[in-house]
Amino acid sequence: MNTQATEFDLIARYFNRPVPKDMLGGGDDCALFSVPAGKQVATSTDLLLEGRHFFSDVDARTLGHKALAVNLSDLAAMGASPIGCLLGLGLPSMDPGWIEKFAEGFYALAAEHHCHLIGGDTTRSLNGITLSVTVFGVVDPLHAMHRRAAQPGDEIWVSGYLGAADIACRMLAGEIPTQPELLKKIRHALELPVPRVALGQALARHAHAAIDVSDGLLQDLGHILKASGCGAQILESTLPIHRDLLGLPAHLLRRAALAGGDLYELCFTAPVSAHAVIDEIGRELSIPLTCIGTATLLNDLQVVDAAGCIVPDLPAGFDHFRM
Amino acid sequence: MNTQATEFDLIARYFNRPVPKDMLGGGDDCALFSVPAGKQVATSTDLLLEGRHFFSDVDARTLGHKALAVNLSDLAAMGASPIGCLLGLGLPSMDPGWIEKFAEGFYALAAEHHCHLIGGDTTRSLNGITLSVTVFGVVDPLHAMHRRAAQPGDEIWVSGYLGAADIACRMLAGEIPTQPELLKKIRHALELPVPRVALGQALARHAHAAIDVSDGLLQDLGHILKASGCGAQILESTLPIHRDLLGLPAHLLRRAALAGGDLYELCFTAPVSAHAVIDEIGRELSIPLTCIGTATLLNDLQVVDAAGCIVPDLPAGFDHFRM
Repeated sequence: MNTQATEFDLIARYFNRPVPKDMLGGGDDCALFSVPAGKQVATSTDLLLEGRHFFSDVDARTLGHKALAVNLSDLAAMGASPIGCLLGLGLPSMDPGWIEKFAEGFYALAAEHHCHLIGGDTTRSLNGITLSVTVFGVVDPLHAMHRRAAQPGDEIWVSGYLGAADIACRMLAGEIPTQPELLKKIRHALELPVPRVALGQALARHAHAAIDVSDGLLQDLGHILKASGCGAQILESTLPIHRDLLGLPAHLLRRAALAGGDLYELCFTAPVSAHAVIDEIGRELSIPLTCIGTATLLNDLQVVDAAGCIVPDLPAGFDHFRM
Repeated sequence: MNTQATEFDLIARYFNRPVPKDMLGGGDDCALFSVPAGKQVATSTDLLLEGRHFFSDVDARTLGHKALAVNLSDLAAMGASPIGCLLGLGLPSMDPGWIEKFAEGFYALAAEHHCHLIGGDTTRSLNGITLSVTVFGVVDPLHAMHRRAAQPGDEIWVSGYLGAADIACRMLAGEIPTQPELLKKIRHALELPVPRVALGQALARHAHAAIDVSDGLLQDLGHILKASGCGAQILESTLPIHRDLLGLPAHLLRRAALAGGDLYELCFTAPVSAHAVIDEIGRELSIPLTCIGTATLLNDLQVVDAAGCIVPDLPAGFDHFRM
């Protein structure tokens, strides 16, 4: 075994925490896990590349958190319960301190959501850091929230607050002037997104369609509408803008709220009859849930401003770094 | 939606073939699949980087085949039956012809093994082609071939023939002189490896431990021995060297057979009592299966040459491109 293999064996040690008895973790050709009777496996994968999905100088712990968070967010949008994950890690060099911090960030979020790291692949990369995360969850097939399940008349909801990740990303990228005090308050929204896993599970029995807002509210809601063959009217005045942003110019706020990505809140549709129970779910989980509009028969996505006029020239979809 | 997104939507079209009714394929937050009662899910992931795991000018169809083949080989080594896969694809530019050929190579092998492509992630890469493939299979937990399951006294077997992929890779890399006629005969062993999926399933009820030979016979067998806490004696004269290589110098053959990677044959251990049934499995599947030695109590891996002497200075593990 050559030196290089030994180095990467060392890396593997940081990712070798024990897994439950009914699973087989790393160190074999495959990982193994069980699925309760009647459930389906939900799975999703994301490829994250340095310079494209994260800044080269990103904090390692933060990156470990985010790499898993964006995948857990996909399970959340399906209403699935996480059970395990695989990590592919391509690294240009061996920095044990960096690896240790990355592993800490990854494992902390994994533990919080009972999502066991059961395998992966480690290799030397010639060109920057490359991450590949695959998550597995289980879901009752009758209650999985498919994108195609929205119905005209459904209310459209969004969790949490809008805009902070987009404004933070634009400040860090130098696209808009940095306000240091504001950036300090909001950059965690970009770097440490909270996947809405418990919310997704709670909604699964009541909501129709759901998606996580990774590419911007309009674009992601658009995916639901296209798959479901319906349209929507969104009331701009109801959009839950992040309160720390309220002093910013209106055009920045509109763009951040409607087109800002990297958000990982859930956008979902549910019948009007479920309004009260959804309000109750939000209260129980202490997650703000806001009804922002209605799905329509007309195959078009309209945003209506405070004066009752349709907003022309809606901001385009997400166009900077995307996870 | 910007131009870039549209380009990548086009890419996604090449990977949008239908999936069986009990699965949910691409275009939602997660893919979904079912697992028969009593079975476990076996899963494995590989990260493949341009310049490290494949040459930059590799044929796209070949790369599509190999990216899936190396993962199917992991399922084979567990004795699992493939059911689906995810593909992460990072590309520096958009060449529809390249994508189409890659998809052809990938889908042809996927169809052969009933391994449905059910999801993935596509992104623009700033630094060369990046591939991430995750496969899923199902396996009876009582018969999964774990690395830790070898027992002293087990016979050690290998499928197929040894050395061709290693010699082809060294010729292509310029490490040894190229013999054009020979290279023509053997390069398919490197570029179009055949995952031993049916063999793995057939062996699962009879073999103890198994691994696929991706990093070299000694190194991979070493993983089994280490995990199982035993040793082995290998008889060099029994090694099934690829017949086209037999004119090459003995030191090249020894290194290719014992340390050559990128092979994707199965190395497995089984009790002596299973010898006849394993011979029969090889005949039924028309796959050469060769008994090459025995697992021992002594915690050491020895290769015994034709004169009955222990070979000193065994070749080191795999040290060039690896999948």
